[in-house]
Amino acid sequence: MVTAIKIQHLTQEGFAPFGEVISCDGHDFFHINNKHTERYHALADLKTNGNSKIGISIFRNIKKTLVPFSISMLERHPKGSQAFIPMQGQPFLIVVAPNLDEHKPDLSKIKAFITDGSQGVNYQIGTWHHPLLTLESPSNFAVVDRIGTEPNCDIYEFPTPIQLFL
Amino acid sequence: MVTAIKIQHLTQEGFAPFGEVISCDGHDFFHINNKHTERYHALADLKTNGNSKIGISIFRNIKKTLVPFSISMLERHPKGSQAFIPMQGQPFLIVVAPNLDEHKPDLSKIKAFITDGSQGVNYQIGTWHHPLLTLESPSNFAVVDRIGTEPNCDIYEFPTPIQLFL
Repeated sequence: MVTAIKIQHLTQEGFAPFGEVISCDGHDFFHINNKHTERYHALADLKTNGNSKIGISIFRNIKKTLVPFSISMLERHPKGSQAFIPMQGQPFLIVVAPNLDEHKPDLSKIKAFITDGSQGVNYQIGTWHHPLLTLESPSNFAVVDRIGTEPNCDIYEFPTPIQLFL
Repeated sequence: MVTAIKIQHLTQEGFAPFGEVISCDGHDFFHINNKHTERYHALADLKTNGNSKIGISIFRNIKKTLVPFSISMLERHPKGSQAFIPMQGQPFLIVVAPNLDEHKPDLSKIKAFITDGSQGVNYQIGTWHHPLLTLESPSNFAVVDRIGTEPNCDIYEFPTPIQLFL
C-alpha cells in the first residue's frame, strides 16, 4: 500500500494520462495581432455532457497547504472536464490517479505534481483528482468547467491517508 | 469626431454593454472543498455558433503598450465570445465600442478601460474591441474562445487615429 509519494515537477508528458497542461512550453504558436501576440492554440479539450454548458468561474482558495502534508480523498467529475488557470502566476499542487475500476481510483498509481507558476491544467472528464491545493492564500484561479444543475462530483475516501513530500 | 479618450478603471457596470468582467468583486460565492475554497460561479457567458467548440488557448503578448498612445482599428468576432484571463496578475487595457450599424462601430461612443490585475473580461459575441493591449511584456493570458475553422474576425479601420490617455 502506498503511504507516501514524492511531488514531481509538472510536465505535459507526465500529466498526459489525466488531461492537458495549459502552458506555452512544448507547444507551437502562430502570430496574431500584427505579430504583437503569439497564439498557443486550443491547449485544452473541454467537454461537458447532459443538460449543461461550459463556463468560467473563479475559485478563490482561502486555505494554504504546507508541505509535507497528508491527503485522504480524491474526487472526480463524471459529466465534464475541469480546467484550472492560475491568475497570479502562482504554483499549485496536483494529485491524480487512474481508475482501478468503475468506482475507485488506483491508489497504487497515484501521482503528485507541482506547477511552475505559468502552468494550468485541464482534468479530462472523470479524472480522479484532489481538490485545489495552493501554497499561498488567498489564491485565485479561473476555472473552466461544466455549468449545470445535476450532481457531478464523486468522492473516494482512502482507507489510510497518503503523505505528499517534496 | 472623437480624437482622444480617457482610460477609465474597469467596473462590471461600465463594461456591462460589452460583456462581463471576470472578477470576484461584486459577485457572491458559495463554499466548496470543505470550506477551503470560495466558488464565484459562472462569471462569463461563453458562446459559439456554427461548426465549432469552446477551447482554451494562451495569448503571449510580446509587445508592450506605452500610454498615451493611438489606436486606428477595432475588430470583432461574429461567431463567438472571447474571454481574456491574466495569468500573472497583470493589468491590461481594453477598448470597446457599440455598433453604429451592422458593419461599423460607433466611434462617438468608444470607451477605454484599465483592469486592476485581478480582473479578466469576456467580450460578448460580435463586440467591437481592440486586440490585446498590455503594459508589460511578455504577458500571458488564458483565452477562452471559439475553436473553429471558418473566418471569425471583422476589422474596422478608423478614418483618423484616436489617442488614449490615463
